[in-house]
Amino acid sequence: MRMYDIIVKKRNGEVLSDEEIAFFVKGYTQGTIPDYQASALMMAIYFQGMNEQETATLTMEMAHSGDMLDLSAIKGLKADKHSTGGVGDKTSLVLTPLAASIGIPVAKMSGRGLGHTGGTIDKLESFPGFSTDISEEIFIKNVNTIGIAIAGQTKNMTPADKKLYALRDVTGTVDSIPLIASSIMSKKLAAGADVIVLDVKTGSGAFMKTEDDAVRLAEEMVKIGNNVGRKTMAVISNMDEPLGYAVGNAIEVKEAIDTLNGRGPEDLLELCLTIGSLMAVGTGVAADVTQARELLMQKLNDGSALKKLAEFVEAQGGDSSPVYDTSLLPQASIHYELKAPRDGYVVHIQSERVGICAMKLGGGRETKDSSIDLSVGILIRKKVGDAVRAGDTVAELYANDENKLQAAVSELSAAYSYSDTPVEKPRLIKRIIGG
Amino acid sequence: MRMYDIIVKKRNGEVLSDEEIAFFVKGYTQGTIPDYQASALMMAIYFQGMNEQETATLTMEMAHSGDMLDLSAIKGLKADKHSTGGVGDKTSLVLTPLAASIGIPVAKMSGRGLGHTGGTIDKLESFPGFSTDISEEIFIKNVNTIGIAIAGQTKNMTPADKKLYALRDVTGTVDSIPLIASSIMSKKLAAGADVIVLDVKTGSGAFMKTEDDAVRLAEEMVKIGNNVGRKTMAVISNMDEPLGYAVGNAIEVKEAIDTLNGRGPEDLLELCLTIGSLMAVGTGVAADVTQARELLMQKLNDGSALKKLAEFVEAQGGDSSPVYDTSLLPQASIHYELKAPRDGYVVHIQSERVGICAMKLGGGRETKDSSIDLSVGILIRKKVGDAVRAGDTVAELYANDENKLQAAVSELSAAYSYSDTPVEKPRLIKRIIGG
Repeated sequence: MRMYDIIVKKRNGEVLSDEEIAFFVKGYTQGTIPDYQASALMMAIYFQGMNEQETATLTMEMAHSGDMLDLSAIKGLKADKHSTGGVGDKTSLVLTPLAASIGIPVAKMSGRGLGHTGGTIDKLESFPGFSTDISEEIFIKNVNTIGIAIAGQTKNMTPADKKLYALRDVTGTVDSIPLIASSIMSKKLAAGADVIVLDVKTGSGAFMKTEDDAVRLAEEMVKIGNNVGRKTMAVISNMDEPLGYAVGNAIEVKEAIDTLNGRGPEDLLELCLTIGSLMAVGTGVAADVTQARELLMQKLNDGSALKKLAEFVEAQGGDSSPVYDTSLLPQASIHYELKAPRDGYVVHIQSERVGICAMKLGGGRETKDSSIDLSVGILIRKKVGDAVRAGDTVAELYANDENKLQAAVSELSAAYSYSDTPVEKPRLIKRIIGG
Repeated sequence: MRMYDIIVKKRNGEVLSDEEIAFFVKGYTQGTIPDYQASALMMAIYFQGMNEQETATLTMEMAHSGDMLDLSAIKGLKADKHSTGGVGDKTSLVLTPLAASIGIPVAKMSGRGLGHTGGTIDKLESFPGFSTDISEEIFIKNVNTIGIAIAGQTKNMTPADKKLYALRDVTGTVDSIPLIASSIMSKKLAAGADVIVLDVKTGSGAFMKTEDDAVRLAEEMVKIGNNVGRKTMAVISNMDEPLGYAVGNAIEVKEAIDTLNGRGPEDLLELCLTIGSLMAVGTGVAADVTQARELLMQKLNDGSALKKLAEFVEAQGGDSSPVYDTSLLPQASIHYELKAPRDGYVVHIQSERVGICAMKLGGGRETKDSSIDLSVGILIRKKVGDAVRAGDTVAELYANDENKLQAAVSELSAAYSYSDTPVEKPRLIKRIIGG
């Protein structure tokens, strides 16, 4: 078998066999197939696509290219969730303790962010001492005792996907639905959960700009998961404005804690309840979505979910006192209020620009080795559909550097647009697939 | 400027600017742009194509990536010809002395073959002592005195094309008309001739399988050449059966000598006269094609063209005695006659298989470092349209190894197909472009 023939076959629009895909993944991971042939194949796939079988095979080959986590020592069906990424997306911070509080075992692998803000792990480091560098033994013990554990990805999980994603990132071949689906699902399958709920974002601030593309991606991933015996579902959610109000790291942790206290933004709560219900039904913790929602609201209202967050933080070496006093979270030194330039209605908030604004404040990582400032961020005060008068505060910025603040303010001003006529609030949950 | 953006721009079907193409060619030649980004761009070009301006710019950037030959010390307009490659194509061996004999200065760069048989240089090495390793001084002196010189490509000509072609060869991106056009024309422009005649082959044994593709390739190359002030013309010629009768190295030299003696195959002579006339008109040696043909036939009939070949071989260190006694050329030890299996008419000779047959006999190079056997080859006896009776010899094979012969015989038998009804002889010259 020759890599050259595999490239030409795909280039000509033919279907690759399981053996050919396995040959490619193994050879590329081992280094016997060079980058320049892999990138040519990726570009050919960009143009010619892959069918369901090819995508499933690529996913499984990448999942098996390294360690597959064995969670069988954890009692019950384990659940995991994954978001394709959006601005202000602190869902995991709310959802993992909330789901654990109703008895769903949450065994989660998370990453650090390379983007506008940090990832879930970075955000959790707002709790002094918190660490995801825990042994597999502790990981399993924590899920069995308190119902929740979050670990960073081990070095030897899905090496094929790591290598291929890094290559796609610099060769213009990220934007391909079958390649995105197989990349995400290979990691989820290797991470071992029985139930997987995917949050596929769509809109200006998301990777999938149109709802149609988001649905196609979600459908591909749901099929792959179900075909290999993992109960997989997907939520298509709006990213035409940031989720909730907070965009940053510690500021998002604060909003998550507020939500677990019953004082969070409506859209964030709604998304957490939707995904949480699917997890509950998938694992058999609830009989149906209505019962699941009732259970989740009960644990939110009686403080169990908030308590679960504190337990979880302590169990991974963190100081949980900010859970009960958010003023203990990292704080920025400069506070700035962005005012509305006119009367009218907020018609659009370009999420991507809000993300860039957070990055300019110092809240994101530009390269793998950058450090991030956990205390900076943006607090949206007016969202799409809100009426404003000239001079009203539409957003607050938290900064530690005047120059960075100025750049961020310009970016944020440009993110807002206004109209004279009333604007309808966008619908958050667009579709549920496989639920 | 970032290579990543250039890849994405082309991937999205946009037109690359001159600056972007120059950035790519310079960066890739210098090694600041890695192979994996170059191969992604090549695959994007395979799918999205390039317009006339992009193709011209790529050609010029590659031509200027190394030494540009300066032929101004040679008097008159210099002519060069190039064939896209076919089986049994010994045109240059006949045409260069023939053109020189009517006063066209022939200053030619040739390559060694990597394929079914050797290239022009390999074939010329059938004359003991012949060498193309001559200094620029000797090269120019020979063209000025005897009217002809052939050199191997210097190491520093079109390094960008060399590097890019090697990459395309292993990444499935050779088959793109703008990329083929720019590769060929960059070498021709760097080689310095004023008049360029291209022989674009079409048919089963050619790179361009259809006449439409051959015409598109020819038109692109003619435009590029004329746009930069080189008089450029192209002939579209048939490669649905081998050219002439001989396929090999010394055996093709013999056929070339026979042709210069007026005893060659009709199709080979016709192609040489067609290309030679275009060279004569382009350089102003003849006023029109009719006069050019008369001149060429005159020098062929009076023995001047044959004498020119001998002079040329001597001038580059070779023993010219085989010109007057072809039995002195390298001879194979085994002779085999392939017989027709039935009565009928030859309906098709798959040129590609005839080429593979020559390769199996040992007449071609599989890798850059293989040595080739100059004495082996095939002599076609029945061509398309010829009537045969069962047991007639359709081809002769010349070999030095029984095992290789057996493999070659199977290949050659499979190349022939027959019909019961008479078959029309194919037309050799299909079109002339820019003449």
